[in-house]
Amino acid sequence: MTQPNYYGLILAGGRGTRFWPRSRRARAKQVLQFFGESSLIQQTVDRLRPVLPPERIWILTNAHLRDEIVSQLPEVPPEQIIAEPAARNTAPAIGLAAKILQDRDPDSIMGVFPSDHIILHPDRYVPLVDAAFRTAAEGRIVVLGIEPRWAETGYGYIEFPEGLSAGSTAEVLSFREKPDLAVAEQYVASGRFSWNAGMFFWRTSVILDELRRQKPGIVELLESLPRFRSAEFDSALADVFPRAEEISIDYAVLEHAANRAGLIATDIGWNDVGSWNAVYELLPRDPDGNAGRGDAVALGAAGTYFDVDGKLVALLGVKDLIVVDTPDALLVADRSRAQDVGKIVKMLEQRKRDDLL
Amino acid sequence: MTQPNYYGLILAGGRGTRFWPRSRRARAKQVLQFFGESSLIQQTVDRLRPVLPPERIWILTNAHLRDEIVSQLPEVPPEQIIAEPAARNTAPAIGLAAKILQDRDPDSIMGVFPSDHIILHPDRYVPLVDAAFRTAAEGRIVVLGIEPRWAETGYGYIEFPEGLSAGSTAEVLSFREKPDLAVAEQYVASGRFSWNAGMFFWRTSVILDELRRQKPGIVELLESLPRFRSAEFDSALADVFPRAEEISIDYAVLEHAANRAGLIATDIGWNDVGSWNAVYELLPRDPDGNAGRGDAVALGAAGTYFDVDGKLVALLGVKDLIVVDTPDALLVADRSRAQDVGKIVKMLEQRKRDDLL
Repeated sequence: MTQPNYYGLILAGGRGTRFWPRSRRARAKQVLQFFGESSLIQQTVDRLRPVLPPERIWILTNAHLRDEIVSQLPEVPPEQIIAEPAARNTAPAIGLAAKILQDRDPDSIMGVFPSDHIILHPDRYVPLVDAAFRTAAEGRIVVLGIEPRWAETGYGYIEFPEGLSAGSTAEVLSFREKPDLAVAEQYVASGRFSWNAGMFFWRTSVILDELRRQKPGIVELLESLPRFRSAEFDSALADVFPRAEEISIDYAVLEHAANRAGLIATDIGWNDVGSWNAVYELLPRDPDGNAGRGDAVALGAAGTYFDVDGKLVALLGVKDLIVVDTPDALLVADRSRAQDVGKIVKMLEQRKRDDLL
Repeated sequence: MTQPNYYGLILAGGRGTRFWPRSRRARAKQVLQFFGESSLIQQTVDRLRPVLPPERIWILTNAHLRDEIVSQLPEVPPEQIIAEPAARNTAPAIGLAAKILQDRDPDSIMGVFPSDHIILHPDRYVPLVDAAFRTAAEGRIVVLGIEPRWAETGYGYIEFPEGLSAGSTAEVLSFREKPDLAVAEQYVASGRFSWNAGMFFWRTSVILDELRRQKPGIVELLESLPRFRSAEFDSALADVFPRAEEISIDYAVLEHAANRAGLIATDIGWNDVGSWNAVYELLPRDPDGNAGRGDAVALGAAGTYFDVDGKLVALLGVKDLIVVDTPDALLVADRSRAQDVGKIVKMLEQRKRDDLL
């Protein structure tokens, strides 16, 4: 199924502040274990294995996270786990990886994967990834679309021609940024829109040509870099990368790219695990709707997510809470406010509580 | 104000399971710091100081707690801090202390004090205690009555003749056990009932005579003991004490005692701090009604008590909770369920979680 010119780029620079207090700068969402024994990024590497053996995986992350990722992924060559000198969104990161791969293998085809999503049915996912690589091999820019299950306002959307079905491929008519609720409802009702899950496939030559055409500044900077792994590479990257335009690949390139193909996913059980509430909803629950990690006793408690390590949590008469305990910080939140956990992190930033960030 | 024959007996054998997870067998409610830097038992000793210097204080507790109490009260002679070999309720404990004091000082007058209540106005309390000792010196059995502030069903009541006012002394007509709500409401409406706060004053000769008359078995056992601090005392106590009838002084003696005097307290700010909710209600609150101990950030949270050590607690959108964190256990409860925290302890007992009891 795999081909020697298939490569994976896993983007792992995010912070995931909505998972505070478990997520921190050096322990972001993608390296946390929400489900079972492996972290989200370990699961990402594992499920790609039939198409992309670990030695063909490249990872872009940040300096806070690199050590943890290196230690979690011993099968991925550590030199392929690169810390971006600055956060510049996806276009410069993807451009950098494409440039490095293109220099090593002019025939290279890369898939781009987020590191912090889950896919409940990897057996259905692998054939899709394989199909996406094969379409990308034809020179097309491929984006995976996820059939929308509700009118989500937190995702971008991809517009297709009418009448597509799961597993089929078609031209992408447009990319749409995160819509408001009314627009999201129209999208879902129309049947012509998919969620953009941030999974892309292309020949490195094709994406670099598109980047050069639409964002020549980024490519010029990347072409000024010395050879990857040369003695000067790291310091040159530290100098050059922060000067790249901070822009997403969607805006920078895909919106105006030629020859785009969308591949509508079959039911792979994709979930971006966007908040503690999403974790709660993915876990098995007791008859009162409580779910979590760790040792708990509950009396008259319902609908509550708990996450404790090395201690017991007792839930007494509480409803619909999120309780997450760590050695230096404890979160107690109403589940309906799960999206606002990042605001707590902002408050801590304002209070200069770097020890808790 | 103090006299050389005044002695204090502090009863400190309780467990206080409603304060789990901070209260444990070896760290019961009375040795915890809820308000400020000192524990409830330290505050008990401190506020009695003008009437009872620490060297005149005796304490009965249990084997789990004795070491902690000895270390918290360095001014109280450690031989006066006695671990009961078994919990036998108040009558045997009070009888034992009365017997020891009577042997040392036939003229001794003892006051009995709970160790786990607070008194917000010790300046008003000290003159009351002084008055109670002086009435006890006349040979009367004195009980302090607290003017009821609501129809509490968790306390015993004392019945007085009509028309008494704060600070006055009168004959006690009856002792009443914890009433149901309708009866408690009648008591409060009648104006003739006070709360029984468990504070008693008497000559040791008088209480021993009453005990001998009404519960001769208890006194016989106590009189079989060798001299206090003799080499044989501890082992004899361990043999004798568990055989004493398990009964409260209220039932065993006071209900049928002659020459009882009730002293109605002035407003001393008495509170038995019966639950985490009572602690919450005694603390200053922020504008949203949150209160507690430790480092907290709150966003859209209200009416919540928090108690954390060495960590930050973030409260997001929660209402009327109790959050108490310890190194090995975390309680998250609805404030309305504060009385049921003991049920969590019972659940842990059933699960043989001795490590958390």
